[in-house]
Amino acid sequence: MRHFVRSVQPGDFAVIFCAQRTTDDGDGYNLMGDRMMELAQTQPGYVGVESARGADGFGITVSYWESEEAIGDWKANAEHQIAQQLGREKWYSSFELRVCRVERSYGTGGNG
Amino acid sequence: MRHFVRSVQPGDFAVIFCAQRTTDDGDGYNLMGDRMMELAQTQPGYVGVESARGADGFGITVSYWESEEAIGDWKANAEHQIAQQLGREKWYSSFELRVCRVERSYGTGGNG
Repeated sequence: MRHFVRSVQPGDFAVIFCAQRTTDDGDGYNLMGDRMMELAQTQPGYVGVESARGADGFGITVSYWESEEAIGDWKANAEHQIAQQLGREKWYSSFELRVCRVERSYGTGGNG
Repeated sequence: MRHFVRSVQPGDFAVIFCAQRTTDDGDGYNLMGDRMMELAQTQPGYVGVESARGADGFGITVSYWESEEAIGDWKANAEHQIAQQLGREKWYSSFELRVCRVERSYGTGGNG
């Protein structure tokens, strides 16, 4: 999960999910997280995901998608819907989500 | 630094900076980080910043701005230019940066 997405293109979409974890249910959360990563990769239009969380439980996950339609399909996925509900009820005390269109992108990807 | 930006609006811009820290110069890095946070807040068009870094040194910082012009002014700021150079030379082994336009935003901001 802790790696760079090097293939982001202008015109792709980024979903920035910023959330404060509760201290509840670490095992269940980690299991579901792994499953969601696996499932997202099978979705049409998936580009990649980057994620970081500090020791204080504040974390940012950015997923990249080829289109708004791909984001809508992922949001509506039945298994993902269960994860979203558990997130709201149990795993996160607070969150913000932004859907953005990528205008441009650069970095050390060519070298690293 | 570890808090939510609740005032992001459609039409704002998000700069997603994803980077792997080296283990070099922790003190210098933290000092500069604090200074850059302070300085960014004085820039015209600054909306806010969210940041998270895991124990493995992989981190994501998202800054929000009212316009592309505001992003350009911040990138060109003399003191920030020094920080960018030190980042490339010393603090980060690898990074990716994306400039994005915010399409929509939601979350628990109304409650939290």
